[in-house]
Amino acid sequence: MKKLINGVETVLRESLDGFCAAHSDIVVLGEDHKFVRRRALKPGKVALVSGGGSGHEPLHVGFVGHGMLDAACPGQVFTSPTPDQMLAAAEAVDQGAGVLYVVKNYEGDVMNFEMAAEMASGTVATVVTNDDVAVEASSFSTGRRGVAGTLVVEKVVGAAAEAGADLASCQALGERVNARTRSMGIALTSCTVPAAGTPTFSLAEDEMEMGVGIHGEPGRRRVKLMPAREIADEMVAAILGDFGADASGEALLLVNGFGGTPTMELYLMYDNARKLIERRGIRITRSLVGNYVTSLEMAGCSLTVTLLDEEIARHWDAPVHTAALRWGM
Amino acid sequence: MKKLINGVETVLRESLDGFCAAHSDIVVLGEDHKFVRRRALKPGKVALVSGGGSGHEPLHVGFVGHGMLDAACPGQVFTSPTPDQMLAAAEAVDQGAGVLYVVKNYEGDVMNFEMAAEMASGTVATVVTNDDVAVEASSFSTGRRGVAGTLVVEKVVGAAAEAGADLASCQALGERVNARTRSMGIALTSCTVPAAGTPTFSLAEDEMEMGVGIHGEPGRRRVKLMPAREIADEMVAAILGDFGADASGEALLLVNGFGGTPTMELYLMYDNARKLIERRGIRITRSLVGNYVTSLEMAGCSLTVTLLDEEIARHWDAPVHTAALRWGM
Repeated sequence: MKKLINGVETVLRESLDGFCAAHSDIVVLGEDHKFVRRRALKPGKVALVSGGGSGHEPLHVGFVGHGMLDAACPGQVFTSPTPDQMLAAAEAVDQGAGVLYVVKNYEGDVMNFEMAAEMASGTVATVVTNDDVAVEASSFSTGRRGVAGTLVVEKVVGAAAEAGADLASCQALGERVNARTRSMGIALTSCTVPAAGTPTFSLAEDEMEMGVGIHGEPGRRRVKLMPAREIADEMVAAILGDFGADASGEALLLVNGFGGTPTMELYLMYDNARKLIERRGIRITRSLVGNYVTSLEMAGCSLTVTLLDEEIARHWDAPVHTAALRWGM
Repeated sequence: MKKLINGVETVLRESLDGFCAAHSDIVVLGEDHKFVRRRALKPGKVALVSGGGSGHEPLHVGFVGHGMLDAACPGQVFTSPTPDQMLAAAEAVDQGAGVLYVVKNYEGDVMNFEMAAEMASGTVATVVTNDDVAVEASSFSTGRRGVAGTLVVEKVVGAAAEAGADLASCQALGERVNARTRSMGIALTSCTVPAAGTPTFSLAEDEMEMGVGIHGEPGRRRVKLMPAREIADEMVAAILGDFGADASGEALLLVNGFGGTPTMELYLMYDNARKLIERRGIRITRSLVGNYVTSLEMAGCSLTVTLLDEEIARHWDAPVHTAALRWGM
């Protein structure tokens, strides 16, 4: 295992220390490294809290700040955070208008966030994201997995909460954005969890995984490496096919790198995917390309499409000031 | 070779098409893919033009926009752009106040930018960056290599130009920032140039390259993989030792990923490096952590330290609106 670490026990702690020191204008580290919270809380605002296993950075800690999350709970690598982390985070950021948990659909995360919600003294609502069209169930999830589309939910609902939306409205908006969002990923290489020390899976030099999950879980099938255009074509077909007749109008296209793919290739995939989507009569009017929901150093990428409407587009465009997403301020 | 491409001949073109489509609010693609220029040019402003081999994205095309570059010329992967690209870019963005070329110190780039400057009809000045303390000369350079510190020069001079500084002032400021900037890099794995098809170099499973260049060129020596703290210690010692007695006051710390290292590890390196630097009495008051000056999918990172003064800090903080760096607007 080749990693820039001092020991597998201290990876998460040292990484969080570095993150919070580098972005001390935006975030504060919670006690015992339980959570990262927004430095400037906004009285009366619905508080957005997310979290999950680490190794997907910048998700979620990189999305804490004005216009997005109020707190994020980092678990160990690819391991759910504990209910007491979520409870501590919620109590630290609750401003009297309730707390909305944004949870990716994995059994551990869903169960722990449910327990935290039951233990909470304040009002809590939850949105579970499940945007991955690759498989209907997986090793870690009942039902579809929540992947890069979670970023879109957090950005859009974060803007609505910042603008004063109440808890029920934020929850309904989050569910609506999730319902209008579809993703699919592919991997060219595996990733190595520090505590495991060996690659999660293996792929031959001429193979790729079509429909991979963000922990390296199996997707639809293992195939021979294909040209970018054919890969994009299969991903776009899966995503748009899943939308069915609803797919029209304007859309957001997110090309998300898994951590080990060069930026050049991500923009090349964007070029191929965008042309394929626009050929189906959907106009890409919002774009994001980069490493946002990663799987450590896995090579590969995912495509995410969100069908926009006026409200979703307006909240996407609204100012955001986090470590990983920043515009308008 | 495992890459998301359609063919080695079209990688650069398709990637640039995707980049310019994704950021069409900020940039315009020049004729024949010769350059990427800022969409909204500012009359009377000194024009900043940079460029170099591709494969280092987001450098330089990702830094085109308000407050940074006016144009960037992308060569083929790890290959200098041609003088006619630089000339075309300069002519497209010259607003009557002259053009400043920012050039990384590699023989091919320096020679081609010199030829372009000689062919220019307008006034041209040049700043050559050479911030890499690892080696005094390399396979591609006479004298020190220009690496991630180039980003700092482009940001600071870009802000000065935006604020109305004239050509001589921009050039002097660029040279001053370069003189106050030092970098060093390390690699855990190689990278693969698409046209070559095989890794540029090879490292055993327990080896790393100390002082690596951004094309995978050799550094100081090949050593056994060390803990992050020891790696950071050697890099910080090399950088601060090179500054000598001048190293005091406030500094900017950039931890730059080479493309294949997870964000978690970059923040862990930041944590280790920051503590080591502050122990020497230098205060880190500006920070940047991420993949900014990459070497395709190489695993590893570089540290860059810029000694700040009031002018440099002010220009660093000034608003910037590019694909890869954005704040204050």
